[in-house]
Amino acid sequence: MARVHNFSAGPAALPERVLQEAAAELMDYQGCGMSVLEMSHRSAAYREIIDDAEATLRRIVGIPDSYRVLFLQGGATLQFAAVPMNLMRTGRAGYVVSGVFSGKAQREAERYGRAEVLATSEAEGFTRIPDLAPVEERAQADDLDYIHICQNNTIYGTMYHELPRCLDVPLVADVSSCFLSMPLDIERYGLVYAGAQKNAGPAGVTIVIVREDLMGAGAALPCCPTYLDYRTQADAGSMLNTPNTFGIYLCGKVFRWVEDEGGLVAMEARNREKAALLYGLLDRSTVFHAVAEPASRSIANVTFRCSTPELDAEFVEGARARGIEGVRGHRAVGGMRASIYNAVSLDDVRALAAFMEEFESRHRIG
Amino acid sequence: MARVHNFSAGPAALPERVLQEAAAELMDYQGCGMSVLEMSHRSAAYREIIDDAEATLRRIVGIPDSYRVLFLQGGATLQFAAVPMNLMRTGRAGYVVSGVFSGKAQREAERYGRAEVLATSEAEGFTRIPDLAPVEERAQADDLDYIHICQNNTIYGTMYHELPRCLDVPLVADVSSCFLSMPLDIERYGLVYAGAQKNAGPAGVTIVIVREDLMGAGAALPCCPTYLDYRTQADAGSMLNTPNTFGIYLCGKVFRWVEDEGGLVAMEARNREKAALLYGLLDRSTVFHAVAEPASRSIANVTFRCSTPELDAEFVEGARARGIEGVRGHRAVGGMRASIYNAVSLDDVRALAAFMEEFESRHRIG
Repeated sequence: MARVHNFSAGPAALPERVLQEAAAELMDYQGCGMSVLEMSHRSAAYREIIDDAEATLRRIVGIPDSYRVLFLQGGATLQFAAVPMNLMRTGRAGYVVSGVFSGKAQREAERYGRAEVLATSEAEGFTRIPDLAPVEERAQADDLDYIHICQNNTIYGTMYHELPRCLDVPLVADVSSCFLSMPLDIERYGLVYAGAQKNAGPAGVTIVIVREDLMGAGAALPCCPTYLDYRTQADAGSMLNTPNTFGIYLCGKVFRWVEDEGGLVAMEARNREKAALLYGLLDRSTVFHAVAEPASRSIANVTFRCSTPELDAEFVEGARARGIEGVRGHRAVGGMRASIYNAVSLDDVRALAAFMEEFESRHRIG
Repeated sequence: MARVHNFSAGPAALPERVLQEAAAELMDYQGCGMSVLEMSHRSAAYREIIDDAEATLRRIVGIPDSYRVLFLQGGATLQFAAVPMNLMRTGRAGYVVSGVFSGKAQREAERYGRAEVLATSEAEGFTRIPDLAPVEERAQADDLDYIHICQNNTIYGTMYHELPRCLDVPLVADVSSCFLSMPLDIERYGLVYAGAQKNAGPAGVTIVIVREDLMGAGAALPCCPTYLDYRTQADAGSMLNTPNTFGIYLCGKVFRWVEDEGGLVAMEARNREKAALLYGLLDRSTVFHAVAEPASRSIANVTFRCSTPELDAEFVEGARARGIEGVRGHRAVGGMRASIYNAVSLDDVRALAAFMEEFESRHRIG
């Protein structure tokens, strides 16, 4: 079968080049006589792979030496605990709740200290990023260990178009679903983390980029598992124990692909073009309507609905029949969601748009 | 290049059939039009993959319904914390220290309660499993939450040939490097865990098999990250968040291969034959000597040394020149280590033995 148009929210489409290279090398990596899957993480060959992955990521994002890059496991969910365990020195942090995952992060942090909700858009059904004025005001007191945001809300299809000004309070961001979608001004943050399975690679790798001075020796809470201690992992080069070797290898290939395709500026331009095509269609439609408010719309996840759940179901089924996969919305929102990460091409989006137009003409109101 | 003889301690050799199948399916899994790497973990296709992996594992090990199987991330190292966070109800556990990893497990548990060292062979350089009489005696008091062992010590090449009789105290075992090497009488344990990267699959998957009644609701310590709460993960079918989807898929293929090759009884017979070949040679040698005492020898990791570090280095270099990889010993022990996991064939071991014989005849003493 031909490859489908894959709009899955994550794990998600990977660049075909990455898959082709991985398939070709699977039995024998560059004449080593073994697969990367079989290679000691302490071998010279693997050392080159992980070092190249980190170096490429540093080039494409522009990560200065004052930040460390960690390749961990356990996903953003495990970071919801690791962040407070490492950074809640005085036991008080601020959280912006803009969707399901930022709410989970806030509740998890409550296990380790006080996790104040500084702003939330729950009352608006998370269809927009909350007003950040209270966040910026609260930062002025300078008594929070950090302020946490989820920069792109995969489920609701919203994203921050401006970051809160947190002054001297470190900004911590879950960037899982917008990582590598656009340039990232890393010096605005104390720490960012991302599950790789959207734009950066396969599921099973979590990337943490953390400012060196936030990882004091012995700074983590006593209950912090050694595995989750950022200082310890940074000192061990993410090899405190065996990392997800194959996952990191694939991430490295994705980073190389991003670089060869023009880097994050090019990724953003493409993602904005893909998003504009879909939002334009939604704004003109009498059948579909966008879930997210215009000022908060994501360029990674486009959420929309028909007027009834029956029409939604008909759309999802019709899409599948045309080789368009993964457009069913999250159960918290219903409707549809098209995740248009880097590896989803403009042609994929055009195929979706064409079916939306067809569906529109069949069900037009008035 | 031809595939090398891979004696790596982990990540380690995988069955060629598994690699061939994975390579063939990498661009398009069974007509789905996408790679397993790109597939939503909530999709029907992936559901089949993870369900089949668990079902196959249950068949080959013989895991009763009263035990749950979890596919997690973070390796044994993260389980060193997860085990006490979940099971240290009264704050007191017993640890047998038989090598590097069991020592790390014991020290990690000290963060969460009292982790008594019940027995250790540290004074003997960990060349044998400690005498278990004090362990069995201590179990009689019935005031420990669990007793923890590391069943096979990868670094020193020792393994338990008898389990301690722990009476009503749950036995918890890190079985990373002997999992699937031989039959496992799961009902002797309360919990076993294994990093997959020895016999079960690639790095990045941790398998936990835990007795249902040990996972009470809310039983984990308040500081336990939600990700590490066994009850929560069991209720979510290991999908509290996105698991290492591709890693679990490969584990499933390895489990199928084990089953098709005759299951764990056949694996044990082969492993004993491979081990006997090497230990026999070591016991006759005037150049090499085995590190582990005969009664504690592992059938998964065979450790040995020459009389000088210079000869060791010459052996490792000579082996590489003959396509024999991964035989350098761990730095804590020096010398050599041949890890002869399931996917290492008798032919691989014969190639190593032939070079040992050659080396022996060149350096024979007397």
